[in-house]
Amino acid sequence: MSCDRLWRGARLAMMTGGKGDPLGLVGDGIVAVADGRILWAGPAADAPGFAAGEVVECGGRWITPGLVDCHTHLVHAGNRTGEFVARLGGADYAAIAEAGGGILATVRATRAADEAGLVAQSLARLDALLAEGVTTVEIKSGYGLTLADELKMLRAARALAGLRPVGVTTSLLAAHAVPPEFRGAGIASPADAYIDHVIAAMLPAAAGLADAVDAFCETIAFSPAQIDRLFTAARAHGYAVRLHAEQLSDQGGAELAARHGALSADHLEHLGDAGIAALARAGTVAVLLPGAYYFLREIKAPPVAALRAAGVAMAVATDLNPGTSPLASPLVAMNMAAVLFGLTPDECLTGMTVTAARALGLGGRIGVLRPGHDADLAIWDIDHPHDLVCRIGPNPLWRRIFKGQDT
Amino acid sequence: MSCDRLWRGARLAMMTGGKGDPLGLVGDGIVAVADGRILWAGPAADAPGFAAGEVVECGGRWITPGLVDCHTHLVHAGNRTGEFVARLGGADYAAIAEAGGGILATVRATRAADEAGLVAQSLARLDALLAEGVTTVEIKSGYGLTLADELKMLRAARALAGLRPVGVTTSLLAAHAVPPEFRGAGIASPADAYIDHVIAAMLPAAAGLADAVDAFCETIAFSPAQIDRLFTAARAHGYAVRLHAEQLSDQGGAELAARHGALSADHLEHLGDAGIAALARAGTVAVLLPGAYYFLREIKAPPVAALRAAGVAMAVATDLNPGTSPLASPLVAMNMAAVLFGLTPDECLTGMTVTAARALGLGGRIGVLRPGHDADLAIWDIDHPHDLVCRIGPNPLWRRIFKGQDT
Ligand SMILES: [Zn+2]
Ligand SMILES: [Zn+2]
Repeated sequence: MSCDRLWRGARLAMMTGGKGDPLGLVGDGIVAVADGRILWAGPAADAPGFAAGEVVECGGRWITPGLVDCHTHLVHAGNRTGEFVARLGGADYAAIAEAGGGILATVRATRAADEAGLVAQSLARLDALLAEGVTTVEIKSGYGLTLADELKMLRAARALAGLRPVGVTTSLLAAHAVPPEFRGAGIASPADAYIDHVIAAMLPAAAGLADAVDAFCETIAFSPAQIDRLFTAARAHGYAVRLHAEQLSDQGGAELAARHGALSADHLEHLGDAGIAALARAGTVAVLLPGAYYFLREIKAPPVAALRAAGVAMAVATDLNPGTSPLASPLVAMNMAAVLFGLTPDECLTGMTVTAARALGLGGRIGVLRPGHDADLAIWDIDHPHDLVCRIGPNPLWRRIFKGQDT
Repeated sequence: MSCDRLWRGARLAMMTGGKGDPLGLVGDGIVAVADGRILWAGPAADAPGFAAGEVVECGGRWITPGLVDCHTHLVHAGNRTGEFVARLGGADYAAIAEAGGGILATVRATRAADEAGLVAQSLARLDALLAEGVTTVEIKSGYGLTLADELKMLRAARALAGLRPVGVTTSLLAAHAVPPEFRGAGIASPADAYIDHVIAAMLPAAAGLADAVDAFCETIAFSPAQIDRLFTAARAHGYAVRLHAEQLSDQGGAELAARHGALSADHLEHLGDAGIAALARAGTVAVLLPGAYYFLREIKAPPVAALRAAGVAMAVATDLNPGTSPLASPLVAMNMAAVLFGLTPDECLTGMTVTAARALGLGGRIGVLRPGHDADLAIWDIDHPHDLVCRIGPNPLWRRIFKGQDT
């Protein structure tokens, strides 16, 4: 069989496994690539003969699917270190938001930036993810909150995919916060009026620019009823949906998300039994974000044991954002998921590959070493994949492969 | 005035400050270097004219003293990921140690390695520290526990300083654990017998190889009485002393350390009022190690407010080690000191520069931008030094300067 490139002498974590072997481990493996896709992956002993344009000797290093960071806000402008320092000094997140800090501080800075400036300010964050093996990243809008600024953010996210070898998938998170313009006198329900605007103006305009619609379901953001209206309209436009749910309180967001067949429900620290059952029934992925938990010094972790028992698939992501999770490291996110949330190292690793791909609706294309999948690989200088989870530094990435090419 | 190299257009955190300006901030600053030492540092407006061999334009970037990691076990062999996974699954650290895991697992691997192998296995860890701006690192022995193996570790630590542009200071931590050979039948007190051996054989032999003597004061290690004997002998040999104290329980270690004029007492989660007062009287630095606290999922943080009130100087270090703090990142260590221990960002930054230098007895030579000090600098692409503490990634280091040279 002929292929473009062949990696051999590698150990593989295929992420194809089931019970007893969740990582799909192979002790002496081969990955063959043609036309940017995986042609064959598995044990050398089972491999057909290949005529390869190029052979890479891996010297026993480990190959995993490229990492998938399925929840980020990495496109933004501004600096919220001052707010972080205030929070360390005891200031409350809700109080900071009331005072015009929090999300709205980033909204001001992001509105003031043009698309090129947004891209320039976001590249270093993206590069930090790529340096640790990320090959696909989800990027949300949500700091524009006007039609023009939300589209600007989405275009900036798309532009990043032209500047770096990485897959970018986007979510329209216009329903992140009620913008100040809607809080003026004469509007009975600012949040409802803004959701009307998102439905009428933004959903049609973001077609092609956004791959999904996201929202923030919380007392300080939008109610389940408002998000129900948004998601109904979004699905009529053909968008997939996902939701920031149960981060600070139990709003029934996970049940709402499940009812709409959401790809994922994210955060979930305050998720209750009804929400767990709903996610399990709908096959909605639970995306866990230990960075926000850590930085906000929360003490209530998501109900990991109950999610596991219910068979809800768990993904892990950085939540990279300027306020509550300034965490540009997928490896630290996996470590925190293990140390702070009690995920097993296997769950962390599947949670940043195969399950994260599912959370993005890309389970048929990335996240597993499987023929036909994009040849997105990370090759690591480690003794075992658990080393990726159980340490913080040094960065053991040896090579990052995007669609078959070294990057 | 003539100098070899001049950095200008920089903002400075001189670390010379006192109350109200602990970082010693300068808005438009200059650093001039001659013969590897700082010739002049301060505001451009106050600077004399310089005839410089080379001028580096900093474009408003920030210059700090190079970071000082004053507590590491970075020289070691082996991999304890399996033990980490067991601990995540609920296994107890003391139980793991009893079963031959823990420190003794690393002892077996370190004894089996030769000096070149130890150096090779440790370089990636050292490089991770340097990549984040470290210019001086303390390295302990303590995984050999025989004369030959302890000296091998110290030689490996010294060898690292020949392979990379970094200052290395060493501590003989022979009193880290009782080696298995002393636990055999017929020895009434293995720990006492081993301390006798350390005093009689190791203290004389480590002269010139070790800059200080360290010990682990804990129920699972050595008693205050045993360490008192060790420190008395160490001081008679002219060694400085430091101590792992009050990590898992209050043993009165800090008082013991203070009584011996120790440079530092390290960990201190279980430090009580008497220990705080003793440290304050002796001028012993409290070295805080949030990595071990985080990885061991401890819930009792060191008494930071009481240390601050008593005027005890606080340093921050990685504690980089294979078991309880696999943390090869000084920036994450500062972040954890802020988020988990409640240090202010200013305390974190002085804690990894000027105070860390004091904890190593090097306060007159490094850690501050001051004429006569080694020209060890870190130059950062940030808006404010607090950015170094308040985020995890991207790594904002722009240049690392060791004794005046780019590295
Ligand atoms: Zn988010
Ligand atoms: Zn230590």
